Amino acid sequence: MALIVQKYGGSSVADAESIKRVAKRIVDARRAGHDVVVAVSAMGDTTDELLELAAEVAPIPAPRELDMLLSSGERISMALLAMAIHSMGFEARSFTGSQAGMITTADHGSARIVDVTPIRLREALDEGAVVIVAGFQGFNRDTRDITTLGRGGSDTTAVALAAALDADVCEIYSDVDGIFTADPRVVPKARKLPVVSAEEMLELAANGAKVLYIRAVEYARRHGVLIHARSTFSSSTGTYVLGAGMSIPDGEEGEKMEEPIVAGVATDLSQAKITVIGVPDVPGKAAEIFKVVARSGANVDMIVQNVSAAATGRTDISFTLPKSDSAAALKALDAVRSEIGFDSLVHDDQIGKLSVVGAGMRTHSGVSATLFEALSVSGVNIEMISTSEIRISVVVRGDDLAEAARVVHTAYGLDGDVDATVYAGSGR
Amino acid sequence: MALIVQKYGGSSVADAESIKRVAKRIVDARRAGHDVVVAVSAMGDTTDELLELAAEVAPIPAPRELDMLLSSGERISMALLAMAIHSMGFEARSFTGSQAGMITTADHGSARIVDVTPIRLREALDEGAVVIVAGFQGFNRDTRDITTLGRGGSDTTAVALAAALDADVCEIYSDVDGIFTADPRVVPKARKLPVVSAEEMLELAANGAKVLYIRAVEYARRHGVLIHARSTFSSSTGTYVLGAGMSIPDGEEGEKMEEPIVAGVATDLSQAKITVIGVPDVPGKAAEIFKVVARSGANVDMIVQNVSAAATGRTDISFTLPKSDSAAALKALDAVRSEIGFDSLVHDDQIGKLSVVGAGMRTHSGVSATLFEALSVSGVNIEMISTSEIRISVVVRGDDLAEAARVVHTAYGLDGDVDATVYAGSGR
Repeated sequence: MALIVQKYGGSSVADAESIKRVAKRIVDARRAGHDVVVAVSAMGDTTDELLELAAEVAPIPAPRELDMLLSSGERISMALLAMAIHSMGFEARSFTGSQAGMITTADHGSARIVDVTPIRLREALDEGAVVIVAGFQGFNRDTRDITTLGRGGSDTTAVALAAALDADVCEIYSDVDGIFTADPRVVPKARKLPVVSAEEMLELAANGAKVLYIRAVEYARRHGVLIHARSTFSSSTGTYVLGAGMSIPDGEEGEKMEEPIVAGVATDLSQAKITVIGVPDVPGKAAEIFKVVARSGANVDMIVQNVSAAATGRTDISFTLPKSDSAAALKALDAVRSEIGFDSLVHDDQIGKLSVVGAGMRTHSGVSATLFEALSVSGVNIEMISTSEIRISVVVRGDDLAEAARVVHTAYGLDGDVDATVYAGSGR
Repeated sequence: MALIVQKYGGSSVADAESIKRVAKRIVDARRAGHDVVVAVSAMGDTTDELLELAAEVAPIPAPRELDMLLSSGERISMALLAMAIHSMGFEARSFTGSQAGMITTADHGSARIVDVTPIRLREALDEGAVVIVAGFQGFNRDTRDITTLGRGGSDTTAVALAAALDADVCEIYSDVDGIFTADPRVVPKARKLPVVSAEEMLELAANGAKVLYIRAVEYARRHGVLIHARSTFSSSTGTYVLGAGMSIPDGEEGEKMEEPIVAGVATDLSQAKITVIGVPDVPGKAAEIFKVVARSGANVDMIVQNVSAAATGRTDISFTLPKSDSAAALKALDAVRSEIGFDSLVHDDQIGKLSVVGAGMRTHSGVSATLFEALSVSGVNIEMISTSEIRISVVVRGDDLAEAARVVHTAYGLDGDVDATVYAGSGR
């Protein structure tokens, strides 16, 4: 008998029918003799609808009140889920973030969990009840106000509960079967990974993979929580995310396999490229530029500086950043053009980023060669390159990204035999 | 500068526009230099929609979870209202029932307020903030669970807050201008009452008047809270409900008037009549019958026992009760027919109840004569009669009720000169 924490996203509890399906799933785990704690998101688009309402009554809603408003979404889904389980003859109790002891910082809209005191949850578990906890929310001890954790908050709630309750596994349910070697909607021959290391998962998530949120994976790695990413719509094993020294549960050895050099290929169309043209090639200019960009709130990813043209003594500096940060960054840079002394700015939002991730890169050479050759053979031009210890990323034309992903996926021998498109979902 | 508690029902905050209108109203009171505490209901039909959802996932929803579910409705409206006020440049903070210190019994769905500890509300007021409190909800200290107060709960929340904070007045807003001498939809010549005594209001509410809930009026009388029932859609003075020793605020003397003998005429079509035929006319039979009826959960109102026919030694006993209780009562009685020894049961749900209420009845005679004469002149047959110290009620055919109300209203000189239908609304 194990203690299992399960997380269900909004699409898994979008309506009464889905809620009953999830309840059935929880009851099955309970019948198997496990203790079950569930973190649940708001139903379907509830959060977006509440945000719209807020926008209608206030141009810039007060953060404290916005959290009060949004936190009601999970109260609805968790109460309904508890009722559904209850009506199947099993004891179930729902708890708000504060009732569950989810203590956070006071940063409304993006609070971070500082402590979890699940006293009431333990009591409920000891009394044999299934515990349902509102995802995405907590409260601050000093202000005694309700807070929300921001994007992907429910995943973090689940992992934090698993850590605090020392659960055997944290099952993150979504509408896809697990973590794939690539996005099946882009690469039909993508394969589901039985296991992936936490560090690889972080690189994949940071570079476009959508199934798990970085914060949750990071929290899990730091606290030694075993994540099992799986589908709400099937009972098949998904993907285990293993931190240092972790192993997949007994009885699933069949899933084990030799660690591949490359775990997967991630694609990302959400970035843009800004090129600063004609930067005086003297020390400190790059520093000035990125200080300005940082102050604009933009999150810079890749950076490339051309070799300076000796004749002019000037160079070009290109960097990528989320499309949503472009406007602010451009405005900030334009304001210091004369001060820094560059000629002009070029904005390009038609780029695509392809990343190859694999812990095996540490010990194997030639990994990048395979990438570059595959791309050149298929005539895909590389515009930027950046690497980490276990990742190689390249920027290509957005239109080339899908094709690039497919050839690279093949080149690393990641292709499966079946068409994986059937597994594809929204990714959440 | 006064402390004002305001209550806004669901129809007053049904959408973004109405919420902004209410926010404006609150801000006006704040501008006038008053401290303002607001109890708000869930938006429009939210509560009904949540109840439907609950029914879809569970035939008989667990009471604890149902309260958790329903309590989310007020969290949405109160947060939106606080945002709207905030965006008008005034500090505003929303509080859940538990944050507001609304301590109740553990009876989910019909909890009673046992104590109010508005510590956080006082802090917020001292800091100059408008306080918004979720109506209809509280929490139980022992179970630490969220509770709801049942029908009309938000009115009770407002009155309880006014009592705990020693407010100068508790303004209950609805879509009608106040308390009328009769339901304007039934009696077009009904007049708005500038003042009504708490005891009269209780009799009116208990006998069909819908503007205020009995529990709230009772709570106000017990704790000496001045209620001002008025309309969300006009700034005109509504009706003051005066408990013992209370008087309407200065500056509204113009509204004062000589206390009339009859305050108003209440009509009620929600009752049914059950007649137990051929009851052995021996001591204790009536007691047996009403013990059975009470055990069925039915709420008996009026009772009439015919004079026994000496020949048969049998009599008929009639009583009225809410239509919704009829089925259970009939079933319970039928089960003890032979035991009690009556012949048969007759159920009549086509009755109407007319009540004349006035504290003046204590000191004036002939009040009932006026009633009976008016009804006989207009050919309305009286089926049952019951009286209290300040009320006379009669049961007539449901079809005759409206006509009866109009002639009686005229007979007591209550008719106004203007058609009051324009004030008529849902009553909530």
